[in-house]
Amino acid sequence: MKVIKTIAEARALRRQLTGSLGFVPTMGYLHEGHLTLVRHSRAENRHTAVSIFVNPTQFSPKEDYQSYPRDEARDLAMLEAERTDFVFMPSEEEIYPRAFSTWVEVTRITDRLEGAVRPGHFRGVATVVNKLFNIIEPTRAYFGQKDAQQVTVIQRMAADLNMNLQVVVAPTVREPDGLAMSSRNVYLTPAGRKAAPVLFRSLQLAREMWAKGEKDAGRLRQAVTAHIEAEPLARLDYVSVADTETLEELSVIDRPALVSLAVKLGKPRLMDNILLG
Amino acid sequence: MKVIKTIAEARALRRQLTGSLGFVPTMGYLHEGHLTLVRHSRAENRHTAVSIFVNPTQFSPKEDYQSYPRDEARDLAMLEAERTDFVFMPSEEEIYPRAFSTWVEVTRITDRLEGAVRPGHFRGVATVVNKLFNIIEPTRAYFGQKDAQQVTVIQRMAADLNMNLQVVVAPTVREPDGLAMSSRNVYLTPAGRKAAPVLFRSLQLAREMWAKGEKDAGRLRQAVTAHIEAEPLARLDYVSVADTETLEELSVIDRPALVSLAVKLGKPRLMDNILLG
Repeated sequence: MKVIKTIAEARALRRQLTGSLGFVPTMGYLHEGHLTLVRHSRAENRHTAVSIFVNPTQFSPKEDYQSYPRDEARDLAMLEAERTDFVFMPSEEEIYPRAFSTWVEVTRITDRLEGAVRPGHFRGVATVVNKLFNIIEPTRAYFGQKDAQQVTVIQRMAADLNMNLQVVVAPTVREPDGLAMSSRNVYLTPAGRKAAPVLFRSLQLAREMWAKGEKDAGRLRQAVTAHIEAEPLARLDYVSVADTETLEELSVIDRPALVSLAVKLGKPRLMDNILLG
Repeated sequence: MKVIKTIAEARALRRQLTGSLGFVPTMGYLHEGHLTLVRHSRAENRHTAVSIFVNPTQFSPKEDYQSYPRDEARDLAMLEAERTDFVFMPSEEEIYPRAFSTWVEVTRITDRLEGAVRPGHFRGVATVVNKLFNIIEPTRAYFGQKDAQQVTVIQRMAADLNMNLQVVVAPTVREPDGLAMSSRNVYLTPAGRKAAPVLFRSLQLAREMWAKGEKDAGRLRQAVTAHIEAEPLARLDYVSVADTETLEELSVIDRPALVSLAVKLGKPRLMDNILLG
């Protein structure tokens, strides 16, 4: 496994590769969700590259950029065990040199959900992913359904800017009790960790109602809200039942829908989602 | 010479090419300036592609998108004569489908000069050039120094987003009397056309002052302004003496400088520039 720190090295290596290249961009502190993406990439491509870069431009000044969990040695050992071909681990200066001033902005779908709560977040995500795509030049890039809006934003960007690659989305990987894997789960207190499966349970409740014929999006939101509010440690940030492409809120579920929610469980804020239809 | 209308056709053709590909993006209504770029590309690359697309997103609602000069048959004949390998001539719907919502924005350097006068112009330019680069995947892309700020914006975008290509800038091509070639020169009245060399003469005056040792940018601006104002048909929009990279106005010319100006000559608005140092 080659570990590469500079863009020049990545380009030189890329030029030597023949055949398909799968790419898994990450912010490190890897978990089973990331490793599943690596396995998908290995199954579908001749080579697999992973990037580890905690992207400062997707954090607002109030957010946890400095304290975002990092463990480089552990990440590299995990990727080595998955037989990753190369790991791109650039410095902040390599990605954002002093004169840097270009941004990729996906409009409209970023006004909603996480975008409404975290202004500038998806501009940072789209910009860094655009750069990484241009540096790595993958055949396919892998993302987890866990960050549903991020997936939509990256698919929109790749399509709108005619990026010559395929965006592949893999299902959310969960702990045995249903909690979606996330690097930020490490912030949960023992009590918070115990309460955390309430997110997925509330989504399962929504799925059951829908499967039994409920088409009223408002009733789904009410049921999820009531379920979350019954958990004393949880504070609901939002629950959404939206069109999977435009992310516009639905009143009637007459097309494929994304049910998503964000919940504060003490300090950490957790997200989860399911697709209906 | 192959003429291609869709992105799918362009991709299919691109996959078959081996060796270097030069690319000249244009808005059509070609003149000797464009053809010079094609010749540069042919000299430096195995294949040469030209695009013709009048990009609606770089025109403001008040500008001349509808009336921008177009002559497809003449353009294709000129490109054929230059032995261009392929011409990409997409429809507006092909480039901007209904759901399109992603923009590439180069900040800071676009606040000045043309960017200050034409809000949104460079966002449209950067976005369409980014798309065309991703569709054509050139080895080298060719632009004219005539549109100096556009060149700076595209170089900045390509560097910031790590686009894997080389941006090549060719000197401005001029009529025998010094008028810089431009598709918009066709709008000039006979009297306007006769007065138009005043732009380049005023720039030559600035160059002479600088060559004789003048380092005061203000005095250069004054001299250019006075020269333009002595022409009754001309109305000066701006004259700038700026750092070539940041486009920040200089007070002392202590580094490479761009002297640029925009002048209304009746209805059409002409631009020109020279580099010092």
